[in-house]
Amino acid sequence: MTSDHSAVTVIGLGSMGSALATALLDRGHPTTVWNRTARRAEALATRGARPAVTPGEAVTASPLIVACVLDYGALHGILEPVGGSLEGRTLVNLTSGSPEQARETAAWARSLGAGYLDGAIMTTPPGVGSPEMMFLYSGSPEVFEAHRPTLAALGDPVHLGADPGLASLYDAALLGLMWSALTGWLHGTALVGAEKTEATAFTPFAVRWLTAVGGFMTAYAPQVDAGLYPGDDATVDVQIAAVDHLVHAAAARGVDNALPELLKHTMERARAAGHGSDSYASVIEVLRNPEGGR
Amino acid sequence: MTSDHSAVTVIGLGSMGSALATALLDRGHPTTVWNRTARRAEALATRGARPAVTPGEAVTASPLIVACVLDYGALHGILEPVGGSLEGRTLVNLTSGSPEQARETAAWARSLGAGYLDGAIMTTPPGVGSPEMMFLYSGSPEVFEAHRPTLAALGDPVHLGADPGLASLYDAALLGLMWSALTGWLHGTALVGAEKTEATAFTPFAVRWLTAVGGFMTAYAPQVDAGLYPGDDATVDVQIAAVDHLVHAAAARGVDNALPELLKHTMERARAAGHGSDSYASVIEVLRNPEGGR
Repeated sequence: MTSDHSAVTVIGLGSMGSALATALLDRGHPTTVWNRTARRAEALATRGARPAVTPGEAVTASPLIVACVLDYGALHGILEPVGGSLEGRTLVNLTSGSPEQARETAAWARSLGAGYLDGAIMTTPPGVGSPEMMFLYSGSPEVFEAHRPTLAALGDPVHLGADPGLASLYDAALLGLMWSALTGWLHGTALVGAEKTEATAFTPFAVRWLTAVGGFMTAYAPQVDAGLYPGDDATVDVQIAAVDHLVHAAAARGVDNALPELLKHTMERARAAGHGSDSYASVIEVLRNPEGGR
Repeated sequence: MTSDHSAVTVIGLGSMGSALATALLDRGHPTTVWNRTARRAEALATRGARPAVTPGEAVTASPLIVACVLDYGALHGILEPVGGSLEGRTLVNLTSGSPEQARETAAWARSLGAGYLDGAIMTTPPGVGSPEMMFLYSGSPEVFEAHRPTLAALGDPVHLGADPGLASLYDAALLGLMWSALTGWLHGTALVGAEKTEATAFTPFAVRWLTAVGGFMTAYAPQVDAGLYPGDDATVDVQIAAVDHLVHAAAARGVDNALPELLKHTMERARAAGHGSDSYASVIEVLRNPEGGR
Protein backbone atom coordinates (compact mmCIF):
# COMPACT_ATOMS: atom_id res chain seq x y z
CA MET A 1 0.00 0.00 0.00
CA THR A 2 1.19 3.48 -0.83
CA SER A 3 0.48 6.39 1.42
CA ASP A 4 -1.34 9.45 0.12
CA HIS A 5 2.00 11.15 -0.42
CA SER A 6 4.21 8.36 -1.66
CA ALA A 7 7.06 9.14 -4.03
CA VAL A 8 6.42 8.98 -7.77
CA THR A 9 8.69 9.17 -10.80
CA VAL A 10 7.42 10.62 -14.08
CA ILE A 11 9.27 9.63 -17.24
CA GLY A 12 8.52 11.71 -20.32
CA LEU A 13 7.82 15.42 -19.97
CA GLY A 14 5.93 16.38 -23.09
CA SER A 15 2.89 18.55 -22.46
CA MET A 16 1.00 15.55 -21.04
CA GLY A 17 3.90 14.24 -18.92
CA SER A 18 4.53 17.71 -17.54
CA ALA A 19 0.85 18.00 -16.62
CA LEU A 20 1.05 14.64 -14.82
CA ALA A 21 4.12 15.72 -12.82
CA THR A 22 2.50 19.05 -11.97
CA ALA A 23 -0.66 17.33 -10.70
CA LEU A 24 1.43 15.01 -8.49
CA LEU A 25 3.42 17.94 -7.11
CA ASP A 26 0.20 19.88 -6.45
CA ARG A 27 -1.03 16.97 -4.31
CA GLY A 28 2.20 16.87 -2.32
CA HIS A 29 3.85 13.79 -3.81
CA PRO A 30 7.67 13.80 -3.81
CA THR A 31 8.10 13.69 -7.60
CA THR A 32 11.19 12.71 -9.55
CA VAL A 33 11.19 13.57 -13.24
CA TRP A 34 13.22 12.53 -16.27
CA ASN A 35 13.05 13.57 -19.90
CA ARG A 36 15.24 12.85 -22.92
CA THR A 37 16.05 16.55 -23.10
CA ALA A 38 16.60 18.33 -19.79
CA ARG A 39 14.85 21.66 -20.35
CA ARG A 40 11.37 20.39 -19.37
CA ALA A 41 12.74 18.85 -16.19
CA GLU A 42 14.31 22.14 -15.20
CA ALA A 43 10.96 23.93 -15.60
CA LEU A 44 9.37 21.40 -13.23
CA ALA A 45 12.27 21.67 -10.77
CA THR A 46 11.20 25.24 -10.06
CA ARG A 47 7.88 23.74 -8.88
CA GLY A 48 9.62 21.27 -6.57
CA ALA A 49 10.31 18.27 -8.81
CA ARG A 50 13.63 16.42 -8.48
CA PRO A 51 15.23 16.00 -11.92
CA ALA A 52 16.98 12.65 -12.39
CA VAL A 53 20.09 12.62 -14.55
CA THR A 54 19.59 9.12 -15.96
CA PRO A 55 16.63 6.74 -16.49
CA GLY A 56 18.22 4.40 -13.94
CA GLU A 57 18.29 7.14 -11.32
CA ALA A 58 14.68 7.99 -12.17
CA VAL A 59 13.49 4.39 -11.76
CA THR A 60 15.23 3.78 -8.45
CA ALA A 61 13.94 7.06 -6.95
CA SER A 62 10.35 5.84 -6.41
CA PRO A 63 8.25 2.70 -5.91
CA LEU A 64 5.87 3.93 -8.64
CA ILE A 65 7.04 4.97 -12.10
CA VAL A 66 4.58 6.74 -14.41
CA ALA A 67 5.68 6.78 -18.06
CA CYS A 68 4.15 8.92 -20.80
CA VAL A 69 6.40 9.05 -23.85
CA LEU A 70 5.96 9.29 -27.62
CA ASP A 71 5.32 5.60 -28.34
CA TYR A 72 6.20 2.08 -27.21
CA GLY A 73 9.48 2.16 -29.14
CA ALA A 74 10.60 5.15 -27.07
CA LEU A 75 9.34 3.49 -23.87
CA HIS A 76 11.37 0.32 -24.40
CA GLY A 77 14.39 2.32 -25.56
CA ILE A 78 14.40 4.17 -22.23
CA LEU A 79 13.49 1.35 -19.83
CA GLU A 80 15.02 -1.83 -21.24
CA PRO A 81 18.62 -0.83 -20.38
CA VAL A 82 17.53 -0.31 -16.74
CA GLY A 83 14.93 -3.10 -16.64
CA GLY A 84 16.58 -4.84 -13.68
CA SER A 85 15.87 -1.78 -11.52
CA LEU A 86 12.12 -2.22 -12.04
CA GLU A 87 12.00 -5.35 -9.85
CA GLY A 88 9.66 -4.78 -6.90
CA ARG A 89 8.42 -1.50 -8.34
CA THR A 90 5.30 -0.67 -10.38
CA LEU A 91 5.26 0.78 -13.87
CA VAL A 92 2.13 2.70 -14.85
CA ASN A 93 2.35 3.16 -18.59
CA LEU A 94 0.26 6.01 -20.01
CA THR A 95 1.95 5.92 -23.43
CA SER A 96 -0.52 5.63 -26.33
CA GLY A 97 -0.41 2.38 -28.24
CA SER A 98 -2.25 -0.76 -29.22
CA PRO A 99 -3.75 -3.42 -26.92
CA GLU A 100 -1.12 -5.83 -28.29
CA GLN A 101 1.72 -3.47 -27.28
CA ALA A 102 0.20 -3.10 -23.81
CA ARG A 103 0.01 -6.88 -23.37
CA GLU A 104 3.59 -7.39 -24.54
CA THR A 105 4.86 -4.70 -22.19
CA ALA A 106 2.88 -6.17 -19.29
CA ALA A 107 4.51 -9.55 -19.94
CA TRP A 108 7.94 -7.92 -20.09
CA ALA A 109 7.36 -6.12 -16.77
CA ARG A 110 6.14 -9.35 -15.19
CA SER A 111 9.32 -11.12 -16.34
CA LEU A 112 11.29 -8.46 -14.43
CA GLY A 113 9.26 -8.89 -11.25
CA ALA A 114 7.60 -5.50 -11.69
CA GLY A 115 3.95 -4.58 -11.25
CA TYR A 116 2.33 -3.13 -14.36
CA LEU A 117 -0.74 -1.10 -15.23
CA ASP A 118 -1.56 0.19 -18.65
CA GLY A 119 -3.51 3.40 -18.74
CA ALA A 120 -5.28 5.87 -21.01
CA ILE A 121 -5.78 9.54 -20.20
CA MET A 122 -9.26 10.66 -21.26
CA THR A 123 -8.57 14.38 -21.19
CA THR A 124 -6.16 16.96 -22.60
CA PRO A 125 -3.19 18.26 -20.57
CA PRO A 126 -5.18 21.21 -19.14
CA GLY A 127 -7.70 18.70 -17.71
CA VAL A 128 -5.10 16.61 -15.83
CA GLY A 129 -5.61 16.87 -12.07
CA SER A 130 -9.37 17.48 -12.30
CA PRO A 131 -11.20 14.81 -10.29
CA GLU A 132 -13.97 14.42 -12.90
CA MET A 133 -11.61 13.41 -15.73
CA MET A 134 -11.42 9.70 -16.52
CA PHE A 135 -8.12 7.85 -16.34
CA LEU A 136 -8.66 4.28 -17.55
CA TYR A 137 -6.40 1.49 -16.22
CA SER A 138 -6.09 -2.20 -16.96
CA GLY A 139 -3.92 -4.93 -15.50
CA SER A 140 -3.62 -6.48 -12.05
CA PRO A 141 -6.49 -5.40 -9.77
CA GLU A 142 -4.19 -5.70 -6.72
CA VAL A 143 -1.61 -3.34 -8.24
CA PHE A 144 -4.40 -0.91 -9.13
CA GLU A 145 -5.86 -0.94 -5.61
CA ALA A 146 -2.41 -0.46 -4.07
CA HIS A 147 -1.77 2.69 -6.10
CA ARG A 148 -5.29 4.05 -6.45
CA PRO A 149 -4.74 6.86 -3.88
CA THR A 150 -1.72 8.13 -5.82
CA LEU A 151 -3.41 7.77 -9.21
CA ALA A 152 -6.33 9.83 -7.87
CA ALA A 153 -4.01 12.86 -7.99
CA LEU A 154 -4.21 12.72 -11.80
CA GLY A 155 -7.98 12.35 -12.25
CA ASP A 156 -10.67 9.77 -11.55
CA PRO A 157 -8.94 6.36 -11.75
CA VAL A 158 -11.16 3.63 -13.28
CA HIS A 159 -10.08 0.00 -13.44
CA LEU A 160 -11.39 -1.85 -16.53
CA GLY A 161 -10.12 -5.36 -15.86
CA ALA A 162 -7.10 -7.62 -15.52
CA ASP A 163 -6.34 -7.78 -19.27
CA PRO A 164 -3.68 -5.06 -19.71
CA GLY A 165 -4.91 -4.40 -23.29
CA LEU A 166 -8.30 -3.07 -22.19
CA ALA A 167 -7.26 0.52 -21.50
CA SER A 168 -5.79 0.91 -25.01
CA LEU A 169 -8.83 -0.75 -26.54
CA TYR A 170 -11.25 1.56 -24.71
CA ASP A 171 -9.02 4.53 -25.50
CA ALA A 172 -9.20 3.82 -29.24
CA ALA A 173 -12.96 3.27 -29.09
CA LEU A 174 -13.61 6.45 -27.09
CA LEU A 175 -11.30 8.58 -29.24
CA GLY A 176 -13.18 7.31 -32.30
CA LEU A 177 -16.39 8.53 -30.66
CA MET A 178 -14.72 11.88 -29.95
CA TRP A 179 -13.47 12.44 -33.51
CA SER A 180 -16.86 11.38 -34.88
CA ALA A 181 -18.73 13.74 -32.60
CA LEU A 182 -16.31 16.65 -33.07
CA THR A 183 -16.36 16.29 -36.85
CA GLY A 184 -20.16 16.04 -36.86
CA TRP A 185 -20.29 19.15 -34.68
CA LEU A 186 -17.87 21.04 -36.96
CA HIS A 187 -19.93 20.01 -40.00
CA GLY A 188 -23.10 21.31 -38.34
CA THR A 189 -21.25 24.45 -37.27
CA ALA A 190 -20.17 25.02 -40.89
CA LEU A 191 -23.77 24.46 -42.02
CA VAL A 192 -25.37 26.97 -39.65
CA GLY A 193 -22.36 29.26 -40.15
CA ALA A 194 -23.29 29.50 -43.83
CA GLU A 195 -26.45 31.27 -42.59
CA LYS A 196 -24.48 33.63 -40.34
CA THR A 197 -25.02 31.72 -37.09
CA GLU A 198 -21.90 31.91 -34.92
CA ALA A 199 -20.30 28.78 -33.49
CA THR A 200 -20.75 30.18 -29.99
CA ALA A 201 -24.50 30.55 -30.67
CA PHE A 202 -24.95 27.03 -32.08
CA THR A 203 -22.67 25.09 -29.73
CA PRO A 204 -24.77 25.31 -26.54
CA PHE A 205 -27.53 23.53 -28.46
CA ALA A 206 -25.04 20.91 -29.67
CA VAL A 207 -23.78 20.31 -26.13
CA ARG A 208 -27.31 20.05 -24.76
CA TRP A 209 -28.24 17.69 -27.61
CA LEU A 210 -25.33 15.41 -26.65
CA THR A 211 -27.18 14.66 -23.42
CA ALA A 212 -30.13 13.36 -25.44
CA VAL A 213 -27.76 11.44 -27.75
CA GLY A 214 -26.16 9.83 -24.68
CA GLY A 215 -29.68 8.80 -23.66
CA PHE A 216 -30.17 7.10 -27.02
CA MET A 217 -26.87 5.21 -26.52
CA THR A 218 -28.00 4.06 -23.08
CA ALA A 219 -31.31 2.87 -24.55
CA TYR A 220 -29.62 1.13 -27.48
CA ALA A 221 -26.82 -0.67 -25.59
CA PRO A 222 -29.07 -3.52 -24.34
CA GLN A 223 -30.39 -3.89 -27.91
CA VAL A 224 -26.81 -4.44 -29.12
CA ASP A 225 -26.16 -7.06 -26.44
CA ALA A 226 -29.43 -8.83 -27.27
CA GLY A 227 -28.93 -8.59 -31.05
CA LEU A 228 -32.52 -7.32 -31.29
CA TYR A 229 -33.23 -3.76 -32.41
CA PRO A 230 -36.91 -2.87 -32.07
CA GLY A 231 -37.50 0.34 -34.04
CA ASP A 232 -40.23 1.73 -31.84
CA ASP A 233 -38.59 5.12 -31.32
CA ALA A 234 -37.17 5.79 -34.79
CA THR A 235 -36.28 3.38 -37.57
CA VAL A 236 -33.32 3.24 -39.95
CA ASP A 237 -35.78 4.06 -42.77
CA VAL A 238 -36.85 7.25 -40.95
CA GLN A 239 -33.19 8.24 -40.40
CA ILE A 240 -32.38 7.68 -44.09
CA ALA A 241 -35.22 10.02 -45.06
CA ALA A 242 -33.92 12.64 -42.61
CA VAL A 243 -30.26 12.40 -43.63
CA ASP A 244 -31.24 13.55 -47.12
CA HIS A 245 -32.28 16.91 -45.63
CA LEU A 246 -28.78 17.27 -44.19
CA VAL A 247 -27.05 16.24 -47.42
CA HIS A 248 -29.12 18.68 -49.48
CA ALA A 249 -28.81 21.56 -47.00
CA ALA A 250 -25.03 21.13 -46.82
CA ALA A 251 -24.63 20.77 -50.59
CA ALA A 252 -26.68 23.94 -51.19
CA ARG A 253 -24.29 25.85 -48.90
CA GLY A 254 -21.01 24.47 -50.26
CA VAL A 255 -20.21 22.45 -47.13
CA ASP A 256 -18.23 19.21 -47.52
CA ASN A 257 -20.60 16.25 -47.54
CA ALA A 258 -18.20 13.32 -47.15
CA LEU A 259 -19.28 12.62 -43.57
CA PRO A 260 -23.08 12.75 -44.07
CA GLU A 261 -22.72 10.78 -47.32
CA LEU A 262 -20.79 8.06 -45.47
CA LEU A 263 -23.36 8.01 -42.67
CA LYS A 264 -26.17 7.72 -45.23
CA HIS A 265 -24.35 4.94 -47.06
CA THR A 266 -23.86 3.07 -43.78
CA MET A 267 -27.57 3.38 -42.97
CA GLU A 268 -28.43 2.16 -46.47
CA ARG A 269 -26.20 -0.88 -45.94
CA ALA A 270 -28.12 -1.57 -42.71
CA ARG A 271 -31.41 -1.30 -44.63
CA ALA A 272 -30.08 -3.59 -47.36
CA ALA A 273 -29.19 -6.09 -44.62
CA GLY A 274 -32.84 -6.12 -43.53
CA HIS A 275 -32.77 -3.49 -40.74
CA GLY A 276 -34.96 -0.78 -42.32
CA SER A 277 -37.63 -1.17 -39.62
CA ASP A 278 -35.08 -1.60 -36.83
CA SER A 279 -33.54 1.08 -34.60
CA TYR A 280 -30.28 2.85 -35.43
CA ALA A 281 -28.49 0.41 -33.12
CA SER A 282 -28.81 -2.21 -35.87
CA VAL A 283 -26.13 -0.32 -37.84
CA ILE A 284 -23.59 -2.19 -35.68
CA GLU A 285 -24.42 -5.32 -37.67
CA VAL A 286 -22.84 -3.87 -40.83
CA LEU A 287 -19.90 -2.34 -38.92
CA ARG A 288 -19.08 -5.76 -37.50
CA ASN A 289 -19.29 -7.34 -40.96
CA PRO A 290 -17.66 -4.87 -43.33
CA GLU A 291 -18.07 -7.12 -46.36
CA GLY A 292 -21.79 -7.61 -45.83
CA GLY A 293 -24.31 -5.46 -47.70
CA ARG A 294 -21.73 -3.33 -49.49
CA MET B 1 -52.30 35.16 -25.66
CA THR B 2 -53.39 31.59 -25.16
CA SER B 3 -54.38 30.30 -21.78
CA ASP B 4 -52.62 27.31 -20.31
CA HIS B 5 -55.42 25.08 -21.56
CA SER B 6 -56.28 26.56 -24.94
CA ALA B 7 -57.60 24.30 -27.69
CA VAL B 8 -55.12 22.73 -30.09
CA THR B 9 -55.52 20.76 -33.29
CA VAL B 10 -52.98 18.11 -34.25
CA ILE B 11 -52.80 17.14 -37.93
CA GLY B 12 -50.87 13.97 -38.72
CA LEU B 13 -50.98 11.04 -36.29
CA GLY B 14 -47.93 8.99 -37.07
CA SER B 15 -45.96 7.87 -34.03
CA MET B 16 -44.67 11.44 -33.52
CA GLY B 17 -48.01 13.17 -34.13
CA SER B 18 -49.76 10.74 -31.79
CA ALA B 19 -47.14 11.49 -29.12
CA LEU B 20 -47.76 15.25 -29.57
CA ALA B 21 -51.52 14.81 -29.19
CA THR B 22 -51.06 12.60 -26.14
CA ALA B 23 -48.80 15.18 -24.47
CA LEU B 24 -51.36 17.93 -25.10
CA LEU B 25 -54.19 15.78 -23.70
CA ASP B 26 -52.06 14.91 -20.66
CA ARG B 27 -51.70 18.64 -19.93
CA GLY B 28 -55.44 19.19 -20.21
CA HIS B 29 -55.64 20.89 -23.61
CA PRO B 30 -58.88 20.32 -25.55
CA THR B 31 -57.30 18.51 -28.52
CA THR B 32 -58.78 17.93 -31.94
CA VAL B 33 -56.99 15.39 -34.15
CA TRP B 34 -57.04 14.52 -37.81
CA ASN B 35 -55.21 11.89 -39.81
CA ARG B 36 -55.44 10.70 -43.40
CA THR B 37 -56.53 7.30 -42.12
CA ALA B 38 -58.93 7.30 -39.18
CA ARG B 39 -57.61 4.44 -37.05
CA ARG B 40 -54.98 6.53 -35.23
CA ALA B 41 -57.56 9.20 -34.41
CA GLU B 42 -59.86 6.59 -32.90
CA ALA B 43 -57.08 5.37 -30.62
CA LEU B 44 -56.57 8.94 -29.37
CA ALA B 45 -60.33 9.46 -28.96
CA THR B 46 -60.29 6.90 -26.16
CA ARG B 47 -57.87 9.26 -24.38
CA GLY B 48 -60.17 12.26 -24.84
CA ALA B 49 -59.18 13.65 -28.24
CA ARG B 50 -61.90 14.89 -30.61
CA PRO B 51 -61.46 13.34 -34.07
CA ALA B 52 -62.22 15.72 -36.92
CA VAL B 53 -63.78 14.25 -40.06
CA THR B 54 -62.13 16.64 -42.52
CA PRO B 55 -59.02 18.86 -42.54
CA GLY B 56 -61.33 21.89 -42.69
CA GLU B 57 -63.13 20.79 -39.52
CA ALA B 58 -59.74 20.19 -37.89
CA VAL B 59 -58.43 23.67 -38.74
CA THR B 60 -61.53 25.55 -37.58
CA ALA B 61 -61.66 23.65 -34.27
CA SER B 62 -58.70 25.49 -32.65
CA PRO B 63 -56.75 28.75 -32.78
CA LEU B 64 -53.52 26.73 -32.89
CA ILE B 65 -52.87 23.99 -35.44
CA VAL B 66 -49.85 21.72 -34.96
CA ALA B 67 -48.92 19.74 -38.07
CA CYS B 68 -46.53 16.79 -38.20
CA VAL B 69 -46.88 14.86 -41.43
CA LEU B 70 -44.63 12.88 -43.77
CA ASP B 71 -43.21 15.80 -45.74
CA TYR B 72 -44.02 19.25 -47.12
CA GLY B 73 -45.83 17.75 -50.11
CA ALA B 74 -48.25 16.01 -47.76
CA LEU B 75 -48.59 19.20 -45.66
CA HIS B 76 -49.61 21.35 -48.61
CA GLY B 77 -51.85 18.61 -50.00
CA ILE B 78 -53.82 18.63 -46.74
CA LEU B 79 -53.88 22.36 -45.95
CA GLU B 80 -54.03 24.20 -49.29
CA PRO B 81 -57.65 23.20 -50.02
CA VAL B 82 -58.67 24.69 -46.65
CA GLY B 83 -56.12 27.55 -46.61
CA GLY B 84 -58.78 30.23 -46.20
CA SER B 85 -59.72 28.75 -42.82
CA LEU B 86 -56.20 29.44 -41.48
CA GLU B 87 -56.79 33.22 -41.40
CA GLY B 88 -56.38 34.51 -37.86
CA ARG B 89 -55.04 31.16 -36.63
CA THR B 90 -51.49 29.93 -36.08
CA LEU B 91 -49.86 27.01 -37.83
CA VAL B 92 -46.97 25.34 -35.99
CA ASN B 93 -45.32 23.08 -38.54
CA LEU B 94 -43.22 20.27 -37.08
CA THR B 95 -42.91 18.43 -40.41
CA SER B 96 -39.28 17.64 -41.34
CA GLY B 97 -37.93 19.50 -44.34
CA SER B 98 -35.42 21.98 -45.63
CA PRO B 99 -34.95 25.62 -44.56
CA GLU B 100 -36.14 26.64 -48.03
CA GLN B 101 -39.39 24.68 -47.62
CA ALA B 102 -39.94 26.26 -44.21
CA ARG B 103 -39.47 29.77 -45.64
CA GLU B 104 -41.84 29.10 -48.54
CA THR B 105 -44.50 27.73 -46.21
CA ALA B 106 -44.11 30.71 -43.85
CA ALA B 107 -44.68 33.07 -46.81
CA TRP B 108 -47.73 31.05 -47.87
CA ALA B 109 -49.18 31.20 -44.33
CA ARG B 110 -48.50 34.95 -44.16
CA SER B 111 -50.37 35.43 -47.45
CA LEU B 112 -53.39 33.79 -45.82
CA GLY B 113 -53.24 36.00 -42.73
CA ALA B 114 -52.08 33.12 -40.55
CA GLY B 115 -49.34 33.09 -37.94
CA TYR B 116 -46.58 30.58 -38.60
CA LEU B 117 -43.82 28.86 -36.67
CA ASP B 118 -41.54 26.21 -38.05
CA GLY B 119 -40.30 23.69 -35.53
CA ALA B 120 -37.99 20.73 -35.04
CA ILE B 121 -38.51 18.03 -32.41
CA MET B 122 -35.17 17.08 -30.85
CA THR B 123 -36.31 13.80 -29.33
CA THR B 124 -38.00 10.56 -30.30
CA PRO B 125 -41.75 9.97 -29.72
CA PRO B 126 -41.20 8.42 -26.26
CA GLY B 127 -39.43 11.65 -25.20
CA VAL B 128 -42.30 13.97 -26.19
CA GLY B 129 -43.85 15.65 -23.15
CA SER B 130 -40.61 15.58 -21.10
CA PRO B 131 -39.72 19.13 -20.05
CA GLU B 132 -35.97 18.62 -20.69
CA MET B 133 -36.41 17.75 -24.39
CA MET B 134 -35.62 20.54 -26.87
CA PHE B 135 -38.25 21.71 -29.31
CA LEU B 136 -36.67 24.28 -31.65
CA TYR B 137 -38.87 26.98 -33.22
CA SER B 138 -38.23 29.75 -35.70
CA GLY B 139 -40.44 32.49 -37.10
CA SER B 140 -42.26 35.46 -35.58
CA PRO B 141 -41.13 36.07 -31.97
CA GLU B 142 -44.59 37.45 -31.13
CA VAL B 143 -46.33 34.32 -32.36
CA PHE B 144 -43.85 32.21 -30.38
CA GLU B 145 -44.41 34.15 -27.17
CA ALA B 146 -48.20 33.97 -27.60
CA HIS B 147 -48.14 30.17 -27.82
CA ARG B 148 -45.19 29.36 -25.60
CA PRO B 149 -47.36 28.10 -22.70
CA THR B 150 -49.10 25.63 -24.98
CA LEU B 151 -45.88 24.55 -26.70
CA ALA B 152 -44.38 23.87 -23.26
CA ALA B 153 -46.72 20.85 -23.04
CA LEU B 154 -44.58 19.15 -25.70
CA GLY B 155 -41.10 19.81 -24.29
CA ASP B 156 -38.81 22.77 -23.69
CA PRO B 157 -39.69 25.36 -26.38
CA VAL B 158 -36.65 27.27 -27.66
CA HIS B 159 -36.96 30.18 -30.11
CA LEU B 160 -34.00 30.47 -32.52
CA GLY B 161 -34.93 33.63 -34.41
CA ALA B 162 -37.35 35.28 -36.82
CA ASP B 163 -36.05 33.48 -39.94
CA PRO B 164 -38.46 30.53 -40.27
CA GLY B 165 -35.68 28.41 -41.86
CA LEU B 166 -33.55 28.31 -38.71
CA ALA B 167 -35.30 25.40 -36.99
CA SER B 168 -34.80 23.14 -40.04
CA LEU B 169 -31.21 24.28 -40.38
CA TYR B 170 -30.42 23.54 -36.71
CA ASP B 171 -32.33 20.26 -36.97
CA ALA B 172 -30.17 19.08 -39.87
CA ALA B 173 -26.98 20.19 -38.11
CA LEU B 174 -27.91 18.51 -34.82
CA LEU B 175 -29.07 15.28 -36.47
CA GLY B 176 -25.73 15.18 -38.29
CA LEU B 177 -24.03 15.40 -34.91
CA MET B 178 -26.30 12.62 -33.62
CA TRP B 179 -25.61 10.22 -36.51
CA SER B 180 -21.89 10.95 -36.27
CA ALA B 181 -21.82 10.31 -32.53
CA LEU B 182 -24.05 7.22 -32.69
CA THR B 183 -22.02 5.70 -35.52
CA GLY B 184 -18.77 6.47 -33.69
CA TRP B 185 -20.22 4.86 -30.58
CA LEU B 186 -21.38 1.77 -32.51
CA HIS B 187 -17.94 1.49 -34.11
CA GLY B 188 -16.30 1.63 -30.69
CA THR B 189 -18.86 -0.83 -29.35
CA ALA B 190 -18.01 -3.23 -32.19
CA LEU B 191 -14.30 -2.78 -31.42
CA VAL B 192 -14.53 -3.56 -27.69
CA GLY B 193 -17.16 -6.20 -28.49
CA ALA B 194 -14.52 -8.07 -30.50
CA GLU B 195 -12.76 -8.52 -27.13
CA LYS B 196 -15.93 -9.76 -25.40
CA THR B 197 -16.83 -6.45 -23.75
CA GLU B 198 -20.61 -6.02 -23.72
CA ALA B 199 -22.23 -2.84 -25.05
CA THR B 200 -23.84 -2.27 -21.67
CA ALA B 201 -20.38 -2.39 -20.04
CA PHE B 202 -18.77 0.02 -22.51
CA THR B 203 -21.61 2.51 -22.97
CA PRO B 204 -21.51 4.17 -19.52
CA PHE B 205 -17.91 5.18 -20.35
CA ALA B 206 -19.01 6.49 -23.74
CA VAL B 207 -21.81 8.53 -22.18
CA ARG B 208 -19.48 9.94 -19.53
CA TRP B 209 -16.88 10.72 -22.21
CA LEU B 210 -19.50 12.72 -24.14
CA THR B 211 -19.48 15.21 -21.27
CA ALA B 212 -15.76 15.78 -21.84
CA VAL B 213 -16.30 15.97 -25.61
CA GLY B 214 -18.99 18.62 -25.04
CA GLY B 215 -16.39 20.52 -23.02
CA PHE B 216 -14.00 20.40 -25.99
CA MET B 217 -16.78 21.81 -28.23
CA THR B 218 -17.42 24.63 -25.79
CA ALA B 219 -13.69 25.42 -25.71
CA TYR B 220 -13.36 25.24 -29.51
CA ALA B 221 -16.45 27.31 -30.47
CA PRO B 222 -14.76 30.70 -29.82
CA GLN B 223 -11.77 29.47 -31.86
CA VAL B 224 -14.10 28.83 -34.82
CA ASP B 225 -15.64 32.30 -34.52
CA ALA B 226 -12.19 33.90 -34.30
CA GLY B 227 -10.73 31.78 -37.11
CA LEU B 228 -7.74 31.09 -34.84
CA TYR B 229 -7.10 27.60 -33.52
CA PRO B 230 -4.27 27.52 -30.97
CA GLY B 231 -3.25 23.89 -30.49
CA ASP B 232 -2.25 24.17 -26.86
CA ASP B 233 -4.38 21.25 -25.67
CA ALA B 234 -3.91 18.77 -28.53
CA THR B 235 -2.91 19.36 -32.13
CA VAL B 236 -4.18 17.90 -35.39
CA ASP B 237 -0.78 16.19 -35.73
CA VAL B 238 -1.27 14.48 -32.35
CA GLN B 239 -4.78 13.34 -33.35
CA ILE B 240 -3.50 11.92 -36.65
CA ALA B 241 -0.94 9.83 -34.74
CA ALA B 242 -3.67 8.59 -32.39
CA VAL B 243 -6.22 7.76 -35.10
CA ASP B 244 -3.78 5.20 -36.51
CA HIS B 245 -4.14 3.19 -33.29
CA LEU B 246 -7.90 3.07 -33.89
CA VAL B 247 -7.56 2.14 -37.56
CA HIS B 248 -5.11 -0.67 -36.76
CA ALA B 249 -7.07 -1.98 -33.77
CA ALA B 250 -10.30 -2.07 -35.79
CA ALA B 251 -8.65 -3.65 -38.84
CA ALA B 252 -7.08 -6.36 -36.66
CA ARG B 253 -10.55 -7.25 -35.34
CA GLY B 254 -12.44 -7.21 -38.64
CA VAL B 255 -14.42 -4.06 -37.82
CA ASP B 256 -15.42 -1.76 -40.70
CA ASN B 257 -12.97 1.13 -40.95
CA ALA B 258 -14.76 3.49 -43.33
CA LEU B 259 -15.59 6.01 -40.57
CA PRO B 260 -12.12 6.21 -38.93
CA GLU B 261 -10.49 6.26 -42.38
CA LEU B 262 -12.66 9.23 -43.38
CA LEU B 263 -11.91 11.01 -40.09
CA LYS B 264 -8.19 10.42 -40.62
CA HIS B 265 -8.38 11.67 -44.21
CA THR B 266 -10.21 14.79 -43.05
CA MET B 267 -7.52 15.47 -40.42
CA GLU B 268 -4.83 14.94 -43.05
CA ARG B 269 -6.54 17.49 -45.29
CA ALA B 270 -6.46 19.94 -42.37
CA ARG B 271 -2.75 19.24 -41.91
CA ALA B 272 -2.14 19.70 -45.64
CA ALA B 273 -3.93 23.05 -45.38
CA GLY B 274 -1.39 24.14 -42.74
CA HIS B 275 -3.26 23.23 -39.53
CA GLY B 276 -0.98 20.44 -38.20
CA SER B 277 -0.06 22.47 -35.11
CA ASP B 278 -3.58 23.83 -34.65
CA SER B 279 -6.40 22.40 -32.55
CA TYR B 280 -9.01 19.99 -33.94
CA ALA B 281 -11.35 22.95 -34.42
CA SER B 282 -9.28 23.91 -37.48
CA VAL B 283 -10.82 20.94 -39.32
CA ILE B 284 -13.80 23.22 -40.00
CA GLU B 285 -11.63 25.07 -42.52
CA VAL B 286 -11.56 22.06 -44.85
CA LEU B 287 -15.25 21.24 -44.26
CA ARG B 288 -16.17 24.77 -45.36
CA ASN B 289 -13.97 24.46 -48.45
CA PRO B 290 -14.49 20.95 -49.77
CA GLU B 291 -12.26 21.48 -52.80
CA GLY B 292 -9.32 22.72 -50.73
CA GLY B 293 -6.53 20.31 -49.76
CA ARG B 294 -8.11 17.22 -51.30
